Amino acid sequence: MEHKKIILGHGSGAGLTHKLISEVFAQTFKINHLDDACKISDKMVISTDSYVVNPLFFPGGDIGKLSVSGTINDVAMSGARPTFLVAGFIIEEGFEISALQKIVCSMQKTAQQAGVQIIAGDTKVVEKGKGDGIYISTTGVGILGDGDELSVNRIQVGDKLVVNGTLGDHAVAIINARDRLELDPPPMSDCCALNNLVQAMLKSAEVKFLRDLTRGGLATILNEVIENSDVGIIISEELLPIKQSVSAVCGLLGLDPLYLANEGKLVGFVSEDERLLDEMKKHNCARDAAIIGEVTDEVKGVYLRTTVGSLRPLPILNSDPLPRIC
Amino acid sequence: MEHKKIILGHGSGAGLTHKLISEVFAQTFKINHLDDACKISDKMVISTDSYVVNPLFFPGGDIGKLSVSGTINDVAMSGARPTFLVAGFIIEEGFEISALQKIVCSMQKTAQQAGVQIIAGDTKVVEKGKGDGIYISTTGVGILGDGDELSVNRIQVGDKLVVNGTLGDHAVAIINARDRLELDPPPMSDCCALNNLVQAMLKSAEVKFLRDLTRGGLATILNEVIENSDVGIIISEELLPIKQSVSAVCGLLGLDPLYLANEGKLVGFVSEDERLLDEMKKHNCARDAAIIGEVTDEVKGVYLRTTVGSLRPLPILNSDPLPRIC
Repeated sequence: MEHKKIILGHGSGAGLTHKLISEVFAQTFKINHLDDACKISDKMVISTDSYVVNPLFFPGGDIGKLSVSGTINDVAMSGARPTFLVAGFIIEEGFEISALQKIVCSMQKTAQQAGVQIIAGDTKVVEKGKGDGIYISTTGVGILGDGDELSVNRIQVGDKLVVNGTLGDHAVAIINARDRLELDPPPMSDCCALNNLVQAMLKSAEVKFLRDLTRGGLATILNEVIENSDVGIIISEELLPIKQSVSAVCGLLGLDPLYLANEGKLVGFVSEDERLLDEMKKHNCARDAAIIGEVTDEVKGVYLRTTVGSLRPLPILNSDPLPRIC
Repeated sequence: MEHKKIILGHGSGAGLTHKLISEVFAQTFKINHLDDACKISDKMVISTDSYVVNPLFFPGGDIGKLSVSGTINDVAMSGARPTFLVAGFIIEEGFEISALQKIVCSMQKTAQQAGVQIIAGDTKVVEKGKGDGIYISTTGVGILGDGDELSVNRIQVGDKLVVNGTLGDHAVAIINARDRLELDPPPMSDCCALNNLVQAMLKSAEVKFLRDLTRGGLATILNEVIENSDVGIIISEELLPIKQSVSAVCGLLGLDPLYLANEGKLVGFVSEDERLLDEMKKHNCARDAAIIGEVTDEVKGVYLRTTVGSLRPLPILNSDPLPRIC
């Protein structure tokens, strides 16, 4: 390893995280997949995530909603229907029990709306100064229907890329809440469970592969997806749904929304289907769904076709400027 | 809730933890079982735990070994064969990558020896001062064989209580390592995976119910087991396997080994079977296995028959003096 100690960038979801995962975890555990969810039987998948978002409460969500919807989404991206969730809590001494209750209620509400049951948990308490309020780890399991198993290997030249809405909303909401930018109205996180949207997508189009657009953002995740393949991706700047307010904050702070985390957004690789966008737009979380690009053999890697027609490469960045975004 | 803020006792596994779990978590999530593992299909169970042990390395183990064997044990206590594990890491900025590698190798070694596969993980990094080196959450799944499903409802008057060895070893090892008591030789934690022992027990006796003797120790856990039943338990002081060195430290510090955490010990409720102890003792983790008491209708609650023949009640304590024991 290039570093001797863990730095914040190791948790960013960008290049440094990949290096740590491949050199320390994947090698020792002999894990050779990069999917968010993993099969535990013919019909069942599992996925786990820890949540350390700061602040704990933000416009559009809180760590409870995030910890449930984030893991539901990881399970859903495999094509499975998430069914059960378990949760582990690491709470800092002195944390307000009323805040804990708010978070736990938010978890339950999110789970119920998504049709998922929280069935077990564990609680640990650490001394003041050894945590930051609360950290939550959730693990979800889901059931695969016949033919629903998605795989990066199914992606082909000509497949379209679809996203379910505007990019960068979660990260900008967190930045605003954390740095007290006092934007008015405050930008809202897109944090939400996508499992029902995914089931609708599977019914209305040939979906090859899905990924949720969390840490690292669209650009990092597209690079991951085609990392070991021969194809390239070109997305079109003019097709990207990005809120004006998000663009404005990004311009101000020198951030690129294509590298910002979302918590209720996915990218789908699909064979073209006119019905798909219509079906997606019936869901609250996909009102701004759009086809944003396609898989091609004209390039290797991920490129943005800018509004003036040039191709700009979108590489994996080594680190991400935003720690603890989720 | 009696408290407005979380105190360390809420994580002790004793009475305060129960109160928090029942009033905040179980009520909101509508969970009405107290088992460590939970069914997710006819043949599959799941269990989750977060590990915050301090120090990270101790004689007999480390947080890696503990986080794998602890969750394996929770799954195994249901009667299931643990098969897969997923892990979430919350790492503090500045943590030595060499220490992380040691922990990850220890996890893999423990999993391999137990015949369990670590299949996925997640890594988050928090700023210096917002964690304590590393916290690990693990979730395990296991497969139930025919007729292996254990249940507290199967416990009957006359059932014997069996433990697989000496009590209090883990807690005393942690106390010694943490408080630098400099005992020589240093007491060793009993931290280990019990799944193979459990499978052997299921084959050689009628096992009704199993629990691992973690936070809260034997006394707390026996109270939990019979909480909603009409029967009582009497254990015999003279039958309890306790190391002399552990007794000595407990005497010195005013601790009771019956309330101390173990990380490689279980209590089984079994119909008497002479073969059972012989079969258990073939396993390294059960050389000192012993029958320690029985289920009775002569008392309600949990009692210790002392060496002088009197009955001493063993209630649930409200808090435990040892935070972050696991």
